[in-house]
Amino acid sequence: MDPNTSPITSTDVRVRYAETDQMGVAHHSVYLVWCELGRTQHMRERGVTYRELEESGVRLPVVDAHLRFRAAARYDDVLSISSWVRECASRRVQFGNAIHRGETLLATALITLIAINESQAPITIPPDVRARLVPAPDPVRV
Amino acid sequence: MDPNTSPITSTDVRVRYAETDQMGVAHHSVYLVWCELGRTQHMRERGVTYRELEESGVRLPVVDAHLRFRAAARYDDVLSISSWVRECASRRVQFGNAIHRGETLLATALITLIAINESQAPITIPPDVRARLVPAPDPVRV
Amino acid sequence: MDPNTSPITSTDVRVRYAETDQMGVAHHSVYLVWCELGRTQHMRERGVTYRELEESGVRLPVVDAHLRFRAAARYDDVLSISSWVRECASRRVQFGNAIHRGETLLATALITLIAINESQAPITIPPDVRARLVPAPDPVRV
Amino acid sequence: MDPNTSPITSTDVRVRYAETDQMGVAHHSVYLVWCELGRTQHMRERGVTYRELEESGVRLPVVDAHLRFRAAARYDDVLSISSWVRECASRRVQFGNAIHRGETLLATALITLIAINESQAPITIPPDVRARLVPAPDPVRV
Repeated sequence: MDPNTSPITSTDVRVRYAETDQMGVAHHSVYLVWCELGRTQHMRERGVTYRELEESGVRLPVVDAHLRFRAAARYDDVLSISSWVRECASRRVQFGNAIHRGETLLATALITLIAINESQAPITIPPDVRARLVPAPDPVRV
Repeated sequence: MDPNTSPITSTDVRVRYAETDQMGVAHHSVYLVWCELGRTQHMRERGVTYRELEESGVRLPVVDAHLRFRAAARYDDVLSISSWVRECASRRVQFGNAIHRGETLLATALITLIAINESQAPITIPPDVRARLVPAPDPVRV
Repeated sequence: MDPNTSPITSTDVRVRYAETDQMGVAHHSVYLVWCELGRTQHMRERGVTYRELEESGVRLPVVDAHLRFRAAARYDDVLSISSWVRECASRRVQFGNAIHRGETLLATALITLIAINESQAPITIPPDVRARLVPAPDPVRV
Repeated sequence: MDPNTSPITSTDVRVRYAETDQMGVAHHSVYLVWCELGRTQHMRERGVTYRELEESGVRLPVVDAHLRFRAAARYDDVLSISSWVRECASRRVQFGNAIHRGETLLATALITLIAINESQAPITIPPDVRARLVPAPDPVRV
């Protein structure tokens, strides 16, 4: 990993028509999908692809998700998903996410994952993966 | 299977808020999910659960789907999904679906599936499954 | 509302194939959809349909959602979604949800909503609605 | 519109984890969402944004969708969605889509839409929109 890599990854996503609901905004469940895009992109930029991780027998299910919604996202909006590691312990990692449209903060999320093997038993996060999941200070209040 | 079982299965589903889009109707992609509910319910009522089928190594991916949309489904509508077998050959089965809200026909679908094994190779549909997938005449024009 | 109505509503849902992911379990974002089903059913049993509420100009967007995942839900599982009101203030209501498969607690959720009008401005929850959203003690630790 | 604009638009999409199912492939219903991304991008590149079209009172619901699935898309695959107009009449437009992973054709689709107003009544496609939806020969067999 380039030591100059920013500790915060930015991933752009355009709101899909199918993601809106009849309130005329993106449905709140979609934010969990966007956070997933953000954190897998964060890992990819640090040399860890979730696809390869899973092929090696390691799975990272979400055990806790806390979302705060401040303003709505609308169809065709281009959003920026910021992703960073808040904490990384031997068996557990917490990501932070902030979703902006331009300068407007739409939502924040704290997503906690644990490592399990293919038999669903908890395992330690592989050391080479953990070494790449370096915590960073929150860039916004979450 | 009870020989008196109707060849057409009816499955009720209530339109979820998350399934609507900003046009104020259920998004057209959701109909494929409802057809899937309908045909797995059709199989279940004939003693074939898709879950067990898959656990036995048989998968039934969709290879062709043709949907015709006639009227929109709205949030909280209770819909009736009719499901029947149109044709069943050794490696391929086609289901018909009709989606009604009361007497109003909202959509029809023709869904064709093939049998594959866990290595994605085409296989024949197990004879005991095929014996339960008895074709019936279309109850509506599809 | 019948004074004998239980303060906790139970809604059954069967896990759809489309709701699973390649980990072989229901994707974590789907739990928000299930919680929505649960709380709208809770309201419906107390004489408040979200559809009519929205038609009268009142919308209840989610402003905060906290989910804890304890065990996975699998395809075709029949789940029971418990829903209850935790707090109801003039402009804000918090629901609790517990999702069980039989006796096994799979997940809990705290979902907070505010009332807004069609111009997205915060409003008070209509008094006749608020009167029906009576808080109850948590039936499980959330 | 630049007269040199290719009649076929290519839109890239990466398969999301939430889009997979327990068969380990993208669920077949997601292809309709990808086709929607493709055709709205096709329109955008020709100066018609679906968002503005809808704000002007014109809606384009899908009335017919025919999908053929040839090979599966997997998590994290980068797909190319080709989109083109097959026919455009006064009230109806048909798009073609071909979804490739590299050189491999995964699926084709024919999606037919009609124009309606906010009261759900059929209308003619606005002439300036129709002028930009120029039919092209199918680039693959659909």
